[in-house]
Amino acid sequence: MKSIMDCETVSLSGEKSALIILDQTRLPQEIKMLSLTSQSDIWNAINSLQVRGAPAIGVAAAIGIYLAATEIEEDVFDCFYKKFQSAKNYLASARPTAVNLFWALDRMEKIVLKNKKMPVSKIKLLLRDEAINIKEEDMQACKKIGENGLSLLKIGDGILTHCNAGQLATVKYGTALAPVHLGQERGYRFKLFATETRPLLQGARLSAFELCENGIDTTLICDSMVSQVMKNGWINAVFVGCDRIAANGDVCNKIGTSGIAIIARHYKIPFYVCAPSSTIDLNTPTGKDICIEERPAHEVTEMWYKQRMVPKEAKVYNPAFDIADNELVDAIITEHGVLRQPYPDALKTLLGPRK
Amino acid sequence: MKSIMDCETVSLSGEKSALIILDQTRLPQEIKMLSLTSQSDIWNAINSLQVRGAPAIGVAAAIGIYLAATEIEEDVFDCFYKKFQSAKNYLASARPTAVNLFWALDRMEKIVLKNKKMPVSKIKLLLRDEAINIKEEDMQACKKIGENGLSLLKIGDGILTHCNAGQLATVKYGTALAPVHLGQERGYRFKLFATETRPLLQGARLSAFELCENGIDTTLICDSMVSQVMKNGWINAVFVGCDRIAANGDVCNKIGTSGIAIIARHYKIPFYVCAPSSTIDLNTPTGKDICIEERPAHEVTEMWYKQRMVPKEAKVYNPAFDIADNELVDAIITEHGVLRQPYPDALKTLLGPRK
Repeated sequence: MKSIMDCETVSLSGEKSALIILDQTRLPQEIKMLSLTSQSDIWNAINSLQVRGAPAIGVAAAIGIYLAATEIEEDVFDCFYKKFQSAKNYLASARPTAVNLFWALDRMEKIVLKNKKMPVSKIKLLLRDEAINIKEEDMQACKKIGENGLSLLKIGDGILTHCNAGQLATVKYGTALAPVHLGQERGYRFKLFATETRPLLQGARLSAFELCENGIDTTLICDSMVSQVMKNGWINAVFVGCDRIAANGDVCNKIGTSGIAIIARHYKIPFYVCAPSSTIDLNTPTGKDICIEERPAHEVTEMWYKQRMVPKEAKVYNPAFDIADNELVDAIITEHGVLRQPYPDALKTLLGPRK
Repeated sequence: MKSIMDCETVSLSGEKSALIILDQTRLPQEIKMLSLTSQSDIWNAINSLQVRGAPAIGVAAAIGIYLAATEIEEDVFDCFYKKFQSAKNYLASARPTAVNLFWALDRMEKIVLKNKKMPVSKIKLLLRDEAINIKEEDMQACKKIGENGLSLLKIGDGILTHCNAGQLATVKYGTALAPVHLGQERGYRFKLFATETRPLLQGARLSAFELCENGIDTTLICDSMVSQVMKNGWINAVFVGCDRIAANGDVCNKIGTSGIAIIARHYKIPFYVCAPSSTIDLNTPTGKDICIEERPAHEVTEMWYKQRMVPKEAKVYNPAFDIADNELVDAIITEHGVLRQPYPDALKTLLGPRK
């Protein structure tokens, strides 16, 4: 098999109209591509994190809703649209936090509404084009994020990353890891520190995997070791992805991100957030307005399907995300450039002319 | 079996001269007491964390060196002392960071040197008395730490703790958890948040276990969730134990402690360190002078003897401890009272008249 770095994490199969994803729950033990056609399989893939990472979820949802549309056997627009909406609501319920899911589904719905005068068969073709556009734009955006992020780095820098905002979280290249992969091509010889990212170990299983696949010097640490590696002087910058950016610049990302931002500020290490502009949600005023997904206790209490490591009487709190307040974020790196404080203005200006 | 809360974690068996410990590597699945007699078994028990927690390690070492002394078949003091020193150096090599190990062994050696004119058989009896004194003093110190710590708390407080500095880390009562256990007896209804404490899960396996055994409202979180529970307003104070306090008040404790201290300061939540005065080491000027134990990579890469979760090419950094700088510590709670900044003076005054 060719290297995972040459594959797309999420794609639309040309022949048999299926959503193709790399099953991220099996890495690093097994590299397995899934071919999904039913809406319930696609919903489950998003919900169970077989496909994960805000940008990848957006692309999977766009392809998923296109596949749903192809199965709607209605020629009258109103009947078609009603079923389309129902399919859209179903996919939107798979996970609550990443805005890219809703963004991609809304964008697909706009295609339907804009072309309501067209025959339904034509609308389905346009939906296919839009899903492919969303995928291609994600790849282009990630490439540009890589260039923009790289402008903030020097040869040999030590970089800390949390969770996986790499190629595996997007179609290709990644967000937070796009500058790293790009730098690797250009001889930057970065030293990467990946937090394991409990409970689901996306850092250990996914980031360490894709970084090593690409030949990058990678050291795994537990989430609790962030302060120590910073104190050791090993970290020049933190790069993380994100699941939603509020209008004031508050950043929602994998649980643990806000703690890392606080610790980085303590050690005066820059904390950078990388995201395509589709992750910015001007309709969410601040981080407080973001719904934080809580996931099942067994993710914490059972160590990967083995014995329970915790007494049964103990309660478990398992939020999947947290909010890094905008004042802790040194820059937001998008495909359109590097944004700095004040974020409310910078974000509005970025999205304004394009909306 | 009676509750673990009624047992001593470390003790000297009267009948057959053995070190009795609760095997902490098997909790919470199995409650098993070990009876150790050989020096290599005692060394292994300390090294492999079957007995862990700075105070418990000190007591185990004191009993261990007494048992070593009983096996030295020399009547001439100089010959006895040479073998005693060799046994002492062996036990001292089991773990490098907790000062209580060296403190207890030094205290036992002082008994030997102070009584060099006595017959060796008499010295052995005095060593037995001293080991029992060290154990009894640990229990008394923990009780007083409980009283002193409780004076800083209110009914219903939310308390975050890291790793295990509870009964299991001492002979009884604990250090950081002594105020919690004492408060439970007195109707304080605390809400405890225990970090799981990767990689070895002392929080999940040990703290959650002993807190639940004592009927305390306990919520387990991953280490990465500390910032989130503080931001939620659920935490009124952080209580941790420690393995060594330097002369300037820098605190060495389980990896992750310094990050929690930084995050607590960000949220203006008091960060308290509980320790018997035997943990204070005036011969260590600052945290920088403390040797931080690095443990094997497999503790991080393999999830409790199951499959490897990390690509083989990834390096692993696995420090067992970190240093919380003294300016992040709101108080050091000892059996002699609650110390506040400036710690250099407070610590010197505390130990001065007793030395």
